Amino acid sequence: MPRQTVSHEEGAIYEFTPALDPIATVESGAELTIETRDSLDGAVQTDDDLIESVPEEVNAATGPIEVADAEPGDVLAVEIEDVRLAEDRGRVVTIEGFGLLDGHEDIEAPRTTVTPVADDTSPDADGTAADADANTDAVIEFGDHEVAVDPCIGTIGVAPAEESFTTLVPHDHGGNLDTTDVSAGNTIYFPVFQAGAMLAMGDSKAAMADGEMCGTGAEIATDIDVTVSVIDGDDVAIELDRPLIETPDAWKTVASAESMEEACELANMDAISLLVAEHGFDPTEAYMFSSLVGGLEISQVVDPLVTVRNALPKTHCDGPF
Amino acid sequence: MPRQTVSHEEGAIYEFTPALDPIATVESGAELTIETRDSLDGAVQTDDDLIESVPEEVNAATGPIEVADAEPGDVLAVEIEDVRLAEDRGRVVTIEGFGLLDGHEDIEAPRTTVTPVADDTSPDADGTAADADANTDAVIEFGDHEVAVDPCIGTIGVAPAEESFTTLVPHDHGGNLDTTDVSAGNTIYFPVFQAGAMLAMGDSKAAMADGEMCGTGAEIATDIDVTVSVIDGDDVAIELDRPLIETPDAWKTVASAESMEEACELANMDAISLLVAEHGFDPTEAYMFSSLVGGLEISQVVDPLVTVRNALPKTHCDGPF
Repeated sequence: MPRQTVSHEEGAIYEFTPALDPIATVESGAELTIETRDSLDGAVQTDDDLIESVPEEVNAATGPIEVADAEPGDVLAVEIEDVRLAEDRGRVVTIEGFGLLDGHEDIEAPRTTVTPVADDTSPDADGTAADADANTDAVIEFGDHEVAVDPCIGTIGVAPAEESFTTLVPHDHGGNLDTTDVSAGNTIYFPVFQAGAMLAMGDSKAAMADGEMCGTGAEIATDIDVTVSVIDGDDVAIELDRPLIETPDAWKTVASAESMEEACELANMDAISLLVAEHGFDPTEAYMFSSLVGGLEISQVVDPLVTVRNALPKTHCDGPF
Repeated sequence: MPRQTVSHEEGAIYEFTPALDPIATVESGAELTIETRDSLDGAVQTDDDLIESVPEEVNAATGPIEVADAEPGDVLAVEIEDVRLAEDRGRVVTIEGFGLLDGHEDIEAPRTTVTPVADDTSPDADGTAADADANTDAVIEFGDHEVAVDPCIGTIGVAPAEESFTTLVPHDHGGNLDTTDVSAGNTIYFPVFQAGAMLAMGDSKAAMADGEMCGTGAEIATDIDVTVSVIDGDDVAIELDRPLIETPDAWKTVASAESMEEACELANMDAISLLVAEHGFDPTEAYMFSSLVGGLEISQVVDPLVTVRNALPKTHCDGPF
C-alpha cells in the first residue's frame, strides 16, 4: 500500500467531540502523511501580525481519520516516523490573557517574533530559501540566534468519551497536550473511546521548550508521517485511561488537569498502574519505586488544563503492550 | 592544602537561620569532604522501622561552614566533585500526611523499604558486604529490582536573609531543594545573605526520581567532596536571588514556592534575567526565547514548598559568571 496523504485542506477540526465525521477511513497498519497548517491558520506572517486575544478557533487538527475496527476499549498506536517543516517560517507570539507570565509588568502582549527557517551549515542563510525538509540541519532564527529545529506535534487526539473539548484543551483523549515528546521516533498511544477512534492532529512547533511558557513554541505547518495501529484492549496489561508515550528509552504517562499538583498525581498513578501490572508490586511498593527512577516532567503550564508526564525508564518498565 | 573533612559529628543543623554559629571556617577555594548522616538520623535500619509522622528534626545538614570573606551580595559556588555512599543501605519510606499521593486509598503509610547497596557486577550480591564507595558500579536493591546508584544531595543551603526555615523547607537560601541535579559534576551557586555564607548540607539519596513522589528517595549517609568559592557580587551579571545550578550542558534556575505554578513563574523569571543580561533581549523577547529552548523541570512536589527549575542549554546561555 502506498503511503496515503490526508491534508488539512480536506478537513480539520477545532473541537474533539464524541461524534465526529471522518474525512478519511484507513485500515489498522496504514502509513499516512498528515499535512497540518500552523496553529494560527496562517494569520501571522510578519512581526507586525499581532494576536490580540486567543482566537475562538485555534490549533486546527487535520482529520478526523477513522481507523477501521477500532472499538471502545481498544488502544490506538500512532507511531511518529517524521515531522517535516512545510513552510519557511515559524512564529512565536504572546497573547494578552495567555501564558505563564501573563500580566507581569515587564511582559508585553501582544508581541510576535517570526522565526525564519534556515540552514545552519550556511551562516549567511537569510531564511527565505531554506530547505525546510532537511530538519536535521535546519535551524530557526530568533533575531540573530539560531535554534535547532526539533519539531513536535502540539495537538493530537481522538474522539473523547462524553464531553467535548476545543483544540485549545488537553484531556484524557489527548488534544492540546503541547508535549515535546510527541515527536519523530516516538509512539503515542490513546484510549479508543469511539468506534473508529477518529484521530486528528495539528499545531506543530519547529521548536518548543518544556513548559511552553510564553504560550507558544515556534508554530509552523508540517507534514507528519505516521503509522496507525489498533491494539485489542484485551492485549493491554492495564486499562489505559489517558495518553501514553513510548520513546526509545522510556514509557511516559501523560496527564492533564486544572493544577500541576493534580496532573502530577494522575501521571504518577498511571505510572504506578504500569509498575503494578508488570512487576506484581502492590500500589504502595510501586509508588515508592516510582520515587527512585525516571520521574515527573513538565509538558505545558499555559493551556486551560496543564499537562505533566511521569517517565519510567525502559530498564525498569517494558510497557503494557 | 590537604582536603579538610567536616563531619556531622562535629555539628549539624535542622534549621537554616540568619544567625548561625559555624563549626568550621574555611577560605574561598577550600577543598572539603562533608560527611553527612541520612535524613532520618539512622532511625530506619530494617523494613520494620516505620516513621509514623514527619519527625520534628529531619534532614540534618552538616555545618554550618563559614567561608571567610563571603559577604552579603556575593555568590557562593559549591562545586560538587563526588558524592560517595557512606553506609551499606538506603531507605525509602512513606509517612502519613506526606507525599504526592498521601491519603489515596491504595497507598499505605507508614511503610519502609530498605534498599541494600550492592554491586551490579555480581548478580547474587546480597547487599551486606558491598563496596559502598564504588558508586560507578553500585546499585541499590529494591526487592529483587536493581536501581543504579546516582547520588544527589537533598538539603543544601546557606544562612537566609531574614526568615528561618527548617531543613524540611526549600526557599531562596536553598534548604530542602531535593533536586537530582545537586550531584557530582555539577556546581550549585547560592546568594550570600550573611557574612561567611554558612553553608550546610545533608539529606543525600542513593537514587531519586524527579518529583520525589513518595516523599523520599533512597535516603543514605554520604561523604561529599566539594570546593567552595566566593564570587564577588560585582562580578555577577545578574542579581542572584535564588540558587542556580550549572551542569556540563545547562544552567538551571531553581525556585521554590507554595504552588508549582508559582515556582514555575519564579524559575522562568530567573531564566529571563539570565537571557536579558547576556543577550540584550528585552524581557518579552527573553520570555519568548525561553519558550523555545531547554525548559521547565520538576525537582520535588512533596515538601512544604515545591521546587521547580528552568534549564537553559549552554548553547544558548553562558551563565552569569
